[in-house]
Parts: sequence; structure tokens; C-alpha cells
Amino acid sequence: MSIHSARREQRHLAWNKSILPVARIKSGETVSLDCPDASNGQINPASTDTTLGSLVFSHLDGVNGPVYVEGAQPGDTLQVDVLSVETGVWGWTALIPGFGLLADEFPKPELKLWTLDKEVGFAWFDEAKGIKIPLRPFAGEMGVARGVKSPDSKTPAPYNTGGNIDTKHLTVGSTLFLPVEVEGALFWTGDGHAAQGDGGECCSAIETPMRATMRLTVRKDRPYTRTPHFSTKLSDNNEEYYCTTGVDSDMRTATRSAVRYMIDYLCAEHGLERSEAYMLCSVAGDLRMHEVVDMPNYVVGLMMPQSIFGGSS
Amino acid sequence: MSIHSARREQRHLAWNKSILPVARIKSGETVSLDCPDASNGQINPASTDTTLGSLVFSHLDGVNGPVYVEGAQPGDTLQVDVLSVETGVWGWTALIPGFGLLADEFPKPELKLWTLDKEVGFAWFDEAKGIKIPLRPFAGEMGVARGVKSPDSKTPAPYNTGGNIDTKHLTVGSTLFLPVEVEGALFWTGDGHAAQGDGGECCSAIETPMRATMRLTVRKDRPYTRTPHFSTKLSDNNEEYYCTTGVDSDMRTATRSAVRYMIDYLCAEHGLERSEAYMLCSVAGDLRMHEVVDMPNYVVGLMMPQSIFGGSS
Repeated sequence: MSIHSARREQRHLAWNKSILPVARIKSGETVSLDCPDASNGQINPASTDTTLGSLVFSHLDGVNGPVYVEGAQPGDTLQVDVLSVETGVWGWTALIPGFGLLADEFPKPELKLWTLDKEVGFAWFDEAKGIKIPLRPFAGEMGVARGVKSPDSKTPAPYNTGGNIDTKHLTVGSTLFLPVEVEGALFWTGDGHAAQGDGGECCSAIETPMRATMRLTVRKDRPYTRTPHFSTKLSDNNEEYYCTTGVDSDMRTATRSAVRYMIDYLCAEHGLERSEAYMLCSVAGDLRMHEVVDMPNYVVGLMMPQSIFGGSS
Repeated sequence: MSIHSARREQRHLAWNKSILPVARIKSGETVSLDCPDASNGQINPASTDTTLGSLVFSHLDGVNGPVYVEGAQPGDTLQVDVLSVETGVWGWTALIPGFGLLADEFPKPELKLWTLDKEVGFAWFDEAKGIKIPLRPFAGEMGVARGVKSPDSKTPAPYNTGGNIDTKHLTVGSTLFLPVEVEGALFWTGDGHAAQGDGGECCSAIETPMRATMRLTVRKDRPYTRTPHFSTKLSDNNEEYYCTTGVDSDMRTATRSAVRYMIDYLCAEHGLERSEAYMLCSVAGDLRMHEVVDMPNYVVGLMMPQSIFGGSS
């Protein structure tokens, strides 16, 4: 296995196709990227609530890369197999004024620091009360360059091409599919999370530095990938799911897109009629809100259990 | 165990507190209600697509009851333990013009009939293609009378007091909590489903007649129950979840409510500060869209895994 590495300082704050790649790889090769936490080192294990008052917001949520994948052309799909996500031994969660789903109800800054015990696989939320969070690390940001001429495609937002999708299901063993919009795809990742729920309501997960290792493969056979799709085994069971997402500034529009793209997928891969596929979504698919805080866009997913396919009489 | 029964024809189309109860029970007693399918018999195993053209919409989504529970007062909570949901041996799913999340994209009526094989526990969606749906029956409608003077509280919609909440997690073994707004609570149920995903996108599940048996208990110790809450084991794993919901005509408002009510619950039951509870939602809770089609209101749930509590060092 040929692994290409990128260093922590090779970091950017926009999905800008004019940024020079840090590595150039063949389809099917593996990259390993060393990424700081979402604050880019502004928060550390010695920080306190008052640290939040001096955060430079424009340095938040950067991504490392980009990686140029040979042969990738607009209209293709980039398949990202998540092979490893190693977090740091500490993490943070914060209420930052102005951010989060209930920002208006939580005006005060507050910082929580975590010790990540990777041996035992959890972090104490409150040891006295016996509340602990299982560690299920993933990269909050994975995306490719946007095709639009848009220096404003800042990395704190998610787009149809991925980005800050903050999707907890993208743990080791999962596969993400992203629509390629520029030659070489230009893949970035960052924003290590040790754990997060679907939604990420307060606008932070357990944030942590990470080293992420991913295999990048160009796919020419998935014209229906128009937003991030993924396959994963749910962390809390052994059921495998295929998921289509909708990414939009309107929650209902994002939801409608997720359903429409699942219908496209079911017709292409399982030979269903559109009306049949729509019914199948209704009786078997699960709508989950992966991200509700990375403005201006929401990420809603429709997750279809794979055990319903391939049964015999 | 004293079981009180109600007959199929004891059915209504509004959450109207002036409707006379069909049974009067003590707190902790059990009721068993025999309910027609959501079409109230207008669709049957001999129906076709053309049947949908002559549906009388005003007869859809009725509920059976109400059951008066002694001692229930406004401000209390009605605890509903789901003991049994027996479906029929057939079911239907339909695309009905004007209904569903993608109504504008699916203008043609289409009816699908199902055979429900309760022995083997699944129904074929398409036997030739090997696609089958596991049967996980639940009542789409469970609710109590609204306190408002509102003859317009029609049963096809969900409210803060429950109703057409279409929440797939309310299978046998789950417990639903509803805020009581009138003396005696006045509980109704109906709308049998053999299976549904989170969302119910096309506006129907696998619809079927059902006999539902539930234990109804008045709780005086849950002032924070302001919308439907429930506890359940997920059908696809053994993890137990506690869920708070938001019910609103705006999806984002419903989502915010679900989070706020979870914070209320965590503070009341686990002694957390509000800011701590908000962070816990973000790192461990899952936002799921239980119902996106029963206009005018959406039902969004925040599901908190219970395994995070009660751990020891």
C-alpha cells in the first residue's frame, strides 16, 4: 500500500479549486493527513471559558489538503474509504455565543475539556454522575473542491460536494461518495471528532486533533451521486445502511433532496420504478438530521437498511 | 389484569374533549382497542389504483376511543405502555395525489397491496428482486384530547398532545408519555402500521387494521412532559433510548423544541445544568425525523441512548 502523507500546516479555509495540491495520487491509493482540531490550536488543554472570548473565528474549521486524484473528472464520483481516524488524548466541547441551534437561549461562553481514554474507548462526561460517552471518531469535514468560481466557499459550511458535513456515521469502515466537480477532485479533510450525535446541536462535538487515513478511488459508474452519499454500519448495531443526503439552507428542501436522491439510487442500483422506490423510502428508510448548525446549510440523510435487499423465499 | 375493550365502530375524527368516553378505567389498567385501517375500510384486498380516486378524505385517519382515565388532571402525564399490536394479514401503501413529501413530483395515484406473514415476520416488497420488509407493528395514532376549544383538531395531524405522530419506534415494549390537558386525559388510538421508516415520506406506511392493547397510567411526577416523549429499544439493536419530540408546522422550530425538551428532561432526571445538558445533546443525542407528512405539523425527535448513564469507573 502506497500511503501519501500531508502535514498539519498544509491547511486551508476555503474549498477553492485554485489551491495547489499537497499530494498527487493514483486512483485507489491511500492518503494520511495530520489535522489540528477545529480551533486550529486556539483551544488547548489549559484553556478556560475566557479563552472562547478571544477566538479568531476566521481560523475555525480549516481543512488539510488538497489531494489531487489522477483521472478524476467533473461528473465522476470520488469514493472515500475511511481506514483510520486516530484522535488526540484530549478534546473540547464549547458553547460559543452566536453559534448552535439554540444560540439565542445560551448567550454565555462555556468550555468543557475531555480526557479521551482510547484504551477503554470512552470519555467521562461526568464521572460522579456516572455519565460517559463512547468514542466513535470520525472526520467532521470531508469534501472536494467546488466547480463554481467561488472564493466564498468557506470551509465551516457543507455543500453538495461535502465539506463540514459533521456526519457521525463516517467512522472507520464506512465509505463516503462525493460528486467530483473539478479535474483531480481535490480532496480535503479535517475537524476531528471523538464523538457526536446526529445533529451536533450546540455546534461542537468532542473536538480533537486527528490523523485520518483514507483510500481515494475514482468511480465512473455512479452518475447519481449529486450530494454526499455513504454506506456504514451503525455504531450501535450490525445493520448496514446506505445513505443519501440533502444539503440546503432550508431544512425541508434538504429533506426532499435526500429522498429524491435515494429514489435515484434505488432505481439505478435495484431496478425499481420511481413510484416503487418512493414507497420503499416510506416503509423502510430513516430520515436523520446529521447536521443542523453549520450555517448556512443543513445536512439531512435518508438511511436505508441493506438487510431488506437480497432476501430469498 | 382488568382489560377494557372498545369496538371498531367507536371511532372519531377529531380530538374533541366533548366526545363521550367508550370506557372509564382506573390508572394502571389496560385497554384493548379494535381499530380499522387508516382508510376506515375504504381500501381492501380487492382494491386497485382506481379505488384511490374515490376515497373520501374526511374519513381517513380516524381514531378509536376515547378512554377516560380516572384521576388524570391537566398538567399530569399519561404513561402509555404498548403491550400488544396485532395487525391484519394484509396491508396497503399508496401514493395519493396531493399527499406526501414529494407530492408535486408524484401526481398519479398508485396502490400497493401487501401480504403480512406474521409467522415469518416480514412482507415481500418484491419477491422476484428479493426485497422484503421486516414487520414491526405500531399504532400511528396515539393521543389525548386537547384542552383548547378546538373542534378543528382533526385526527390526521399530530399535536403536542400526540395524535398522528406516526413514530415507528412505538412498537411493543415501548412507553409513550403524553401531556394531559383535560380531566380523564381521554386517550384514543388508531392507524395501525405493520412497518414504517422514520419520516413516512410518501404519506403511508404499511397500513393495516390492528388490535392494540395498552396500559394507561397517570403520572404526577413529570411536569416536563410538554410534547410526546417515549422510551424504546431500537428495533435493530438492543440499545434503549429516551426520546423527546418537537411538534410544529416549521421543521426547524420542531427541532429546536425537541432539543429544549431534552434539556428540560436531563436537568430534571439527571441533575444537569442546562448548558451541560445542551452539550450532552450535541455529543450523544440523535435527531431523527419521525414524521414529515402529516400536515400541518412535523414531528422531530431527539433520541438519547440510555447506556451513557449509570456507568461506573
